[in-house]
Amino acid sequence: MDEPELIEKLRGRVGQPRTAGVVLGIGDDCAIVRPRGAREDWLYTTDMLLEGTHFLRETHTPAEVGWKALARGLSDIAAMGGEARFCLLSLAVASWVDARWLDGFYGGLLALGERHGAALIGGDLARTERVMCDIVVVGTVPRGKALRRDGARPGDAIYVSGALGGSALGLATGRGKAWVRHKRPQPRMALGRFLRARVGATAAMDLSDGLSLDLHRLCMASGLHAEIAPPPLYRGATLAQGLHGGEDYELLFTAPERARVPGAFEGVPLTRIGTMRKGAAGAVEMDGAPLPPLGYDHLRHL
Amino acid sequence: MDEPELIEKLRGRVGQPRTAGVVLGIGDDCAIVRPRGAREDWLYTTDMLLEGTHFLRETHTPAEVGWKALARGLSDIAAMGGEARFCLLSLAVASWVDARWLDGFYGGLLALGERHGAALIGGDLARTERVMCDIVVVGTVPRGKALRRDGARPGDAIYVSGALGGSALGLATGRGKAWVRHKRPQPRMALGRFLRARVGATAAMDLSDGLSLDLHRLCMASGLHAEIAPPPLYRGATLAQGLHGGEDYELLFTAPERARVPGAFEGVPLTRIGTMRKGAAGAVEMDGAPLPPLGYDHLRHL
Repeated sequence: MDEPELIEKLRGRVGQPRTAGVVLGIGDDCAIVRPRGAREDWLYTTDMLLEGTHFLRETHTPAEVGWKALARGLSDIAAMGGEARFCLLSLAVASWVDARWLDGFYGGLLALGERHGAALIGGDLARTERVMCDIVVVGTVPRGKALRRDGARPGDAIYVSGALGGSALGLATGRGKAWVRHKRPQPRMALGRFLRARVGATAAMDLSDGLSLDLHRLCMASGLHAEIAPPPLYRGATLAQGLHGGEDYELLFTAPERARVPGAFEGVPLTRIGTMRKGAAGAVEMDGAPLPPLGYDHLRHL
Repeated sequence: MDEPELIEKLRGRVGQPRTAGVVLGIGDDCAIVRPRGAREDWLYTTDMLLEGTHFLRETHTPAEVGWKALARGLSDIAAMGGEARFCLLSLAVASWVDARWLDGFYGGLLALGERHGAALIGGDLARTERVMCDIVVVGTVPRGKALRRDGARPGDAIYVSGALGGSALGLATGRGKAWVRHKRPQPRMALGRFLRARVGATAAMDLSDGLSLDLHRLCMASGLHAEIAPPPLYRGATLAQGLHGGEDYELLFTAPERARVPGAFEGVPLTRIGTMRKGAAGAVEMDGAPLPPLGYDHLRHL
């Protein structure tokens, strides 16, 4: 069983929640909830950051770990065009963790939170053998305006922000700007809001598991297929890193052909890479050949 | 550094969040948020459940693990007199986990969620060496009416629900009703709402880490000290298990002397165990002698 299979199975089992106010449940970057009487929709996302999987004690400073834990959740809020409001953190610490490490960890997390208005308001603490963080980020978006994965329409243009593969390159080389990029991802908060409010994007998601897999997911959700050209690559990254490498935390989005999408937003390039088409739902073609979804699947070998 | 120390340090560092709408941040069973325009306050809690710490693969069925993961979070909502609305689950699975285990796990979680109106609306998945769950439960409570730890006043009577030490007894013996109680805790949802709406309780919290430590925390939050007699004990439990054993998930609450507290609610006894007094904040005396907070502190040896 792989991750999409498990998620599909869960969605089937849970159904569309009948709880009043749940607009969107399992399967997108965030769940969407509409509190009774509230002026805005509320977005909910949780993201784990695990020692050994997402970071190593030896190579990541505590501040980088705290930063990255929160950045992953913020990026999901950005992908829906939302504004972060607050976060909660569950943290299980290993025996090697000392007060100094905790200080640095919370320093990194709180610094990024302050930058984006996400106050830390709660969480849980435990002990374990390897450090494990789970961040909950809660955000808001104007009623009914969240950018979802299922909103793309046939003929929409497909775009990505930035250049892809930098994080995979950094992970492979362990040095230079790509390494910094891997360790200190920058969630595209302002860009997400801009895409929602000014561009009229029809769908969006963040690139956390690699373009090939994430675009496949967007196509599945929208019931369409995608035709693309190779994406812009991070300087020094291979095409494979750009297509299948995870953790770039750039935004993948679609917009009507006639939408006015600028060439860059706040210094980050916005590049058209293709077009959404009617056809086999979920299929992605690059330069006319099928592109397999080789990005990072957490459960592929389950 | 122990858990209260770390939490106090974090509270100092984070401060009272200035984000509009955050009524209560770090340090209680739940954080409290008031969305703009909403009719209710929203409650947020996260709770980890770790293989090796909170359950063993050998002794807990997958359904029991799923049940307990959610029960811990629901109990925090109950403690504030709230109603559960939905939940999110982050789950890291170990290599021994198969599709059948996952099926049972979600079965247990969804069964308890259905019983209490907490739909599963999202989460995250990852792989690790030992199973790790982090549950986020979100609930609602009428505006300004949440039962907090800091609301007790001098002269208030102190109560506990049920009989204490059953979970610790079950863990020690691994059999009988106490063992079932340990593995399938019953969050006191209806009781929490009753205490808020009908009894006029002034403070409440759930007993997750043992009466001695949890009452100490309630006293710290309210700036008072407590004088108690021994609490009602679960059949077969020792006084030490009743005082310091964790995971009973009963409710500890205070109410004005004149409040009408019934002897039982839906079959669960409500027993007065003492009185809140002015004095050294956080101190607890039982039968005139200091009761040290020996309950379960996750970080005591950090």
